[in-house]
Amino acid sequence: MEPTLQALLAPRSIAVIGASDHIHKIGGRPIHYMLNHGYAGTLFPVNPQRDSIQGLPAYPSLDALPAVPELAIIVVAGDAAVQAVRDCARLGVAAAIVIASGFGEAGPEGKRQQDEMVRVAAAAGLRLVGPNSQGLANFGSGTIASFSTMFIEVPPRDGPVAVVSQSGGVSAMVYGLLRGQGIGVRHMHATGNEADITVSELALAVAHDEDVRLILLYLESLTDPAVLALAAATARARGVPMVAVKAGRTGAGQRAAASHTGAIANEDRAVDAFLRHHGIWRVDDAHALARCAPLYLRGWRAGGRRLVVVSNSGASCVMAADAADARGLSMAALSDATQAALAERLPGFAATANPVDVTAALLTNSALFGDVLPVVAQDPSTDMVLLDIPVAGMGYDVERFARDAASFADTAGKPIAVAAWQDLVAAPFRAADVPTYDSAADALSAFSQLVSHQALLDRIRTEPPAMASAAPSSSESAPRKALREELATATLSEAASLARLAEAGVPVVAHRLCQTADEAVAAWRELGGPVAVKASSPQVPHKSEHGLVALHCDDADTVAQAFDRQTAILAAMGADCEGVVVARMTRGQRECMVGAHWDPVFGPVVVVGDGGKYVEVLNDSAVLLAPCSEDAVVRELAGLRIAPLLRGVRGEPAVDMAALARIAVLVGRLMHDAGGAIRAIDLNPVMLSADGAVVVDGLMEVSAELALEHGARV
Amino acid sequence: MEPTLQALLAPRSIAVIGASDHIHKIGGRPIHYMLNHGYAGTLFPVNPQRDSIQGLPAYPSLDALPAVPELAIIVVAGDAAVQAVRDCARLGVAAAIVIASGFGEAGPEGKRQQDEMVRVAAAAGLRLVGPNSQGLANFGSGTIASFSTMFIEVPPRDGPVAVVSQSGGVSAMVYGLLRGQGIGVRHMHATGNEADITVSELALAVAHDEDVRLILLYLESLTDPAVLALAAATARARGVPMVAVKAGRTGAGQRAAASHTGAIANEDRAVDAFLRHHGIWRVDDAHALARCAPLYLRGWRAGGRRLVVVSNSGASCVMAADAADARGLSMAALSDATQAALAERLPGFAATANPVDVTAALLTNSALFGDVLPVVAQDPSTDMVLLDIPVAGMGYDVERFARDAASFADTAGKPIAVAAWQDLVAAPFRAADVPTYDSAADALSAFSQLVSHQALLDRIRTEPPAMASAAPSSSESAPRKALREELATATLSEAASLARLAEAGVPVVAHRLCQTADEAVAAWRELGGPVAVKASSPQVPHKSEHGLVALHCDDADTVAQAFDRQTAILAAMGADCEGVVVARMTRGQRECMVGAHWDPVFGPVVVVGDGGKYVEVLNDSAVLLAPCSEDAVVRELAGLRIAPLLRGVRGEPAVDMAALARIAVLVGRLMHDAGGAIRAIDLNPVMLSADGAVVVDGLMEVSAELALEHGARV
Repeated sequence: MEPTLQALLAPRSIAVIGASDHIHKIGGRPIHYMLNHGYAGTLFPVNPQRDSIQGLPAYPSLDALPAVPELAIIVVAGDAAVQAVRDCARLGVAAAIVIASGFGEAGPEGKRQQDEMVRVAAAAGLRLVGPNSQGLANFGSGTIASFSTMFIEVPPRDGPVAVVSQSGGVSAMVYGLLRGQGIGVRHMHATGNEADITVSELALAVAHDEDVRLILLYLESLTDPAVLALAAATARARGVPMVAVKAGRTGAGQRAAASHTGAIANEDRAVDAFLRHHGIWRVDDAHALARCAPLYLRGWRAGGRRLVVVSNSGASCVMAADAADARGLSMAALSDATQAALAERLPGFAATANPVDVTAALLTNSALFGDVLPVVAQDPSTDMVLLDIPVAGMGYDVERFARDAASFADTAGKPIAVAAWQDLVAAPFRAADVPTYDSAADALSAFSQLVSHQALLDRIRTEPPAMASAAPSSSESAPRKALREELATATLSEAASLARLAEAGVPVVAHRLCQTADEAVAAWRELGGPVAVKASSPQVPHKSEHGLVALHCDDADTVAQAFDRQTAILAAMGADCEGVVVARMTRGQRECMVGAHWDPVFGPVVVVGDGGKYVEVLNDSAVLLAPCSEDAVVRELAGLRIAPLLRGVRGEPAVDMAALARIAVLVGRLMHDAGGAIRAIDLNPVMLSADGAVVVDGLMEVSAELALEHGARV
Repeated sequence: MEPTLQALLAPRSIAVIGASDHIHKIGGRPIHYMLNHGYAGTLFPVNPQRDSIQGLPAYPSLDALPAVPELAIIVVAGDAAVQAVRDCARLGVAAAIVIASGFGEAGPEGKRQQDEMVRVAAAAGLRLVGPNSQGLANFGSGTIASFSTMFIEVPPRDGPVAVVSQSGGVSAMVYGLLRGQGIGVRHMHATGNEADITVSELALAVAHDEDVRLILLYLESLTDPAVLALAAATARARGVPMVAVKAGRTGAGQRAAASHTGAIANEDRAVDAFLRHHGIWRVDDAHALARCAPLYLRGWRAGGRRLVVVSNSGASCVMAADAADARGLSMAALSDATQAALAERLPGFAATANPVDVTAALLTNSALFGDVLPVVAQDPSTDMVLLDIPVAGMGYDVERFARDAASFADTAGKPIAVAAWQDLVAAPFRAADVPTYDSAADALSAFSQLVSHQALLDRIRTEPPAMASAAPSSSESAPRKALREELATATLSEAASLARLAEAGVPVVAHRLCQTADEAVAAWRELGGPVAVKASSPQVPHKSEHGLVALHCDDADTVAQAFDRQTAILAAMGADCEGVVVARMTRGQRECMVGAHWDPVFGPVVVVGDGGKYVEVLNDSAVLLAPCSEDAVVRELAGLRIAPLLRGVRGEPAVDMAALARIAVLVGRLMHDAGGAIRAIDLNPVMLSADGAVVVDGLMEVSAELALEHGARV
C-alpha cells in the first residue's frame, strides 16, 4: 500500500482536531470507537478548552502535540477546517479526513474553501479525504476514523468484506445489512465530496488487503475510471469479486446526483459498459450490494444455471420455478436414478421431479431435507439448490434442517441458499453459515448474480480488458481536455466520411462523388446496375426527410433528374452542396448500425445494433468501450432483440455477425487512435448479409482541426 | 352469502372428525383455536377413543352427535375420510372441510377416492373444501377450521384483509407478513385440491363480507373464471381492491404446477389479460401479495405518478430517483414557492429541489421532517411522498419522525411511505400506521402498484368488462366441451378465410380467386396496377417459404408465369391447390398483425401487434379477451415497442390505430359468436396507414363442421 493510504488505513498516530469528551458528539465518537476496538497507535485529542478527553491528555493545538501525527481527523467546521488543513500541511501530516460539511456541496463559497484546502494540501503532499465525509474505518487495524452511529447499534466484527462509498449513509447501511447476515466487515469507508481521494483510490487500497475477499462500492461520480480499472484488475488477480452501485442511473437520478455532489453525470450505458469491461458487477441499491455477499464469501462456483428447488410447500415450488425463469435460471432435469432415489425417501404423494416437494410430511419426519439433499447434490445436472421454507414454526425441527443444509453447503461443492421469511426460521440457518434470504426471489437474484458474475470474470481471465479505454481522462491534463472540448466541431461530408472509413479498412459501399449530372450518369454506368443518388451536405445529415435520397435509379434520365432535383432542394434550403454521391444499391438481409462517440470520462464508446430509419425509436443496441475485440462485440450482439434474426429464422441463412463486429472494432480503433479528434461516427445502415457487411451511409463528426485536414468548411 | 358458504364461514355448529386432545395435533389445533379465539357456536369433537377432548364432551361417531352439525372438519385420512364424507352426506351436513392429503395430488388411487367423495357429496348437496386443505379461518366469527401453526406464532387479530389461497403455505405466509406489518386479517382460507369449492367461490364469499377492504388471492389452476369475474365485480362495486398471484407463469412453473395439483396450465398471457380485464392486479409471489396492503388499507388515491422523495441521505435521494424511474414514477417538479418555503426551513447546503435532502442536520434538528412534510404536501405537483431513512440510530428522535409522518398520512390526503431497513427505525412508523418498507425499491413498487391499479379500476368503472368473456367454460357442459375439442380442425383456404372476414365487416384486400392463368391475368387487369399472386392451399399456411408468393406483378406475362410456377410447386409438394389468389398490392406505413385463438378456459383471446415475417421472433404484441372495445385495444397498442412508430416519427404521419383496433374488435366478436367453432384466426400482415387498415393475408382454423360449410376438405 502506498504510504499515504497506509496513513489513512493504519496510521501509527492520529490527531482529532475538535475532539470531544462526549462520546455521542462527532468529535468524541471516533476516539471512543478506537479506545474500545483495538486501535494500537497513539491518539492525540486536540481541543483548546480541555486538559483531558476520554481519559487521554488533550492538546490545545496541532503545534502543541509531542509528535507530528500521521493522520488528522478534522471535525471543526468552515474556516477552522481550512486552517486545520493548512496546519497539517505545514507540519507534514501525511493524510487528513475532513468530516465537516458545508463545502463543495453547499455553494460557491463552500466550493472556494474546498478548493483552497485542496491547493494547500496538494502543495504539501498532504492527502485529503472529504470534506463532508463520514470518515474511514479499518477494523483490521482498529483505525475507526468515522463518526457513524452504526457501530453503536451493530458492534464491529472484523471480516472479509470491504465497503467503499461516496456516501456515509450507504456505507453504514451496507455495513449493517452485512452484519445482520452474520458477516464481518474489514473496511467501511466514505469519501464524501472527493476533493482529493476517491472511491476508486480506496478500492485499489483495499484490493491489496490480503484479508479482503469481497469489495462493495457505492459511486455517484466517476472521474478516475483508470484508477477503478486498476483496482478491478488487482481484485481480479486475487480472485476478489467487486460489486458496485453507480447511482444516478436515470435522468431523474442524474439530476439528483448533480444537486447532491455536483458530480459529472456520466452517460449511463457507458458506465454499464465500463463496469462490465472490467468485471465489476453492477447492482441498483444498498440492499442489492449486500445481497450476494454470503454466496461470494463461501467461494462457490456453480457449474451452470440449472437450479433444484426443494421445499415443504408445493406452491413455493411453483413460484420458485417462475422466479427462476424470470432470472434466466433453468430447472435442472434430475436423472431417473436421482428421481428413483428420491422416491425411496419421500412420501408417496410427493413430487420427485424438480422442484422437489417434500410436502407437509416434513412435520412428522424431520429427516426429509437431510434425506433429500445428498441425493440432489450428486446429480450432475444440479448446479445449485434453493431450500424454500415458507412454513416452519411450532413442531418443526428447524435446528435439524439447518444442520442438514450446512452439511450440503460444506460438502456438496455446489451453492445452496435458503428462503425463509420468518426470523425464527432464518436464524438457525444463518448461524450455520448457510446463505439465507427473506424470499425465494432474493435468493434467486443472488444465485443469478453469482453465476453471471463468475461467467463474466471467467471470460475476462481469458481475454483481459484493454486498460487503454480508461486512459483519456487520466493521461490528458484537465486544461487540455477542456480546451479540446470547447473547440468547434464539424460534420464531414458523406464522401469524406466514407473515404476516411475506407482508409481505416471499413468496407464501404462502391460509390462516386459527382459534381454534375453528367458525372452522376457516368458513375451509374461505371458502377453497373441500380444506384442510390444522395446529395451530400454537412448541414443536412438526415437526407431522406428532405427528399435528398433517390433509390433504385437504373437509367440515365432517372439518375440525371435525381441529381438536378436534389441540388435544387439543397439550393432552396440554402445548404452547401459538396456534391452528389452515386452509390451502388446494396441488398442485404438486415439493416444494422454502428455508431461511436467520445465520452468525456471513458473516451471512445461504440454502439452496435439494429439499424434503419427507426434506429432511435426502436433502440435495439449494445454499448462497448473501445478498443474492443470482435468476440466481445459478437457476444453483445447475441443479447439483442434481433439476435434470432441474425442467427437466421424462417429459412433465412445466418448473417455474418463477425463482419458487423469487425466494423465495430475498426470504428472503435479509429476513435481511440484519433484521441478525441473524432467526436462521433454514425454508420446507418450497415447492410448485413450472409457473407459480409458493408457501410451504405456514414457520417463523422470531427474536431475543427481534423475537418480542415479533410477540406471541410467549419 | 349463500347458505353453504355461511356453513363454511360462520357455522352455528362444527364437528371435528378425528378430534384430538393434543393441541399440537392436526385434530386438536382447530378446537384449541376456536376455544381461544371467540367461536360462539357449538363444537362437537368426534373420537371413539375418548369421552372428552380439550374440556368438551367427545362423541364416538357423527351419528352419536346430539344434533347435525352445519360444518364438519374431516381430519381422518384415506378411506376413513371418504366414509366421513358419506356420513356427512347421509346426515345432511351442509359443508365439510377435508384436511387429509393423499388424494387427487397423490396418484390414480387417490384421485379415485377424491372423485368418490365429490360424487357422494354432490348427490346430497354437501359442499366440500379440499381434500389436502389446510382449512378455513374466519376471525370475524371465530370459525378457525384450520390446522395452521401460524396462529400460535402470530396470534390472530381480526381486520380488513381476506386471504384466499389454493395453498395452505401461501395463505399462512401472507397472513404472517400482513400481521408483521401490524395489519389485522379477517379471512385466511386454503382450498387445497379444489375437488369442489374453489378460490374463486371463496373470493366471491369474502367479497360480500362488509368488513373486508382488501382481497388477496393465490391461484394455481383457474377453472371457473366466470366465478372469479363475478367476485371481482362484487369487490369493485364495494371499492375493494383484489390482488392475485397466478403461479405457473412460466413453462417451468407450469410443469411444477402440473406435478403439484394436476392443474390445467393456462396460457399465461391469457391469464394476464383476464385478470386485467376484471381489474384484478397480478403480482408474482407471497411477498408481493402483502406488499401493497398498507397503502390500499389507508384508502389513498394518488392524483398521478409524481413522487417527492424526502431523506436525510443524499445517496438515498439519488437511488430513490433511479428506482422511481425504473417503476414508471416521475419526480415531481416542486414549485418555486415550495422550494422557497423549503429553503427557509432547511440548512443552507440542503437540496430544496426534489429529492429533498434534509442532510445529517437531522441529527441536531429533529423537527426537519415535520417542517418539510407539510410544505411538500401542499404543492399541487406532489402526488405521493417517500420518506427514506437509511440512517437513524443513536441520537435520532425516531418517535418524533414517526409522529410527523403520521400527521402527513392523516391530513395530507396523499400517500406516504417510509423506507427504513432497521427494525428499530421501522417500528415506530408501523405503530403510527404509516406504511413502512425495508427498502425504497419495495416502497416504490407498492406506490406504482397503487397508482396503476387505481387507474385500471377507474377505467373499468367507466367501461365495465364484458362478463361474456368468461362464459364459455361455465355455460357449456364439460362433456360437450371435451367433445368439441376432440373434433378435427381444418384450415380454411385463404380465399375462404378472406370471404368470411369480409362478411364480418373486416376490411380485406381487393382480390380474386383464380383457377387458371387466364383468370389470373383477367383479375390483374380488373384490379388495375401491380398485384400479388399467391397460391392458396390449406396444407401450406406459410406460403413465402415455399416460393408461393410473387409480389409486384404488373404485366400479363409475369402474372401468368407466377400462376404456373406456383401451381407446379404445389403439385410437386403433393398439396391441394384451391386456386391462386390475385390481390391488389397494398402499401402502408406499417405491417401489423391481428390474431385470435380459442382458449379452453377463457374462450376467445385476441392478439394484436407488430406484423410481418418476423412476428413470432420479435413478438411485440398485446393480448386481450374478447369481446373487447376499440378503446381497450388502442390502449394496449400504446404499450407496444412500436407505439412511437404508430404515433408517427421522423416526419411520418400517425397511422390509423383505431382502424387496426376495429379489426381486432371484429375478430374477437367473430370468435366469440362462433362459440368455439373458429379455433384460430391469423391476419398478417394487416397493412396500416394514415387513413385505414386492410387485411392482406388471412387464415382461419375452424372446426371440421364449419370447414365443411365452407366447402373445405377436412
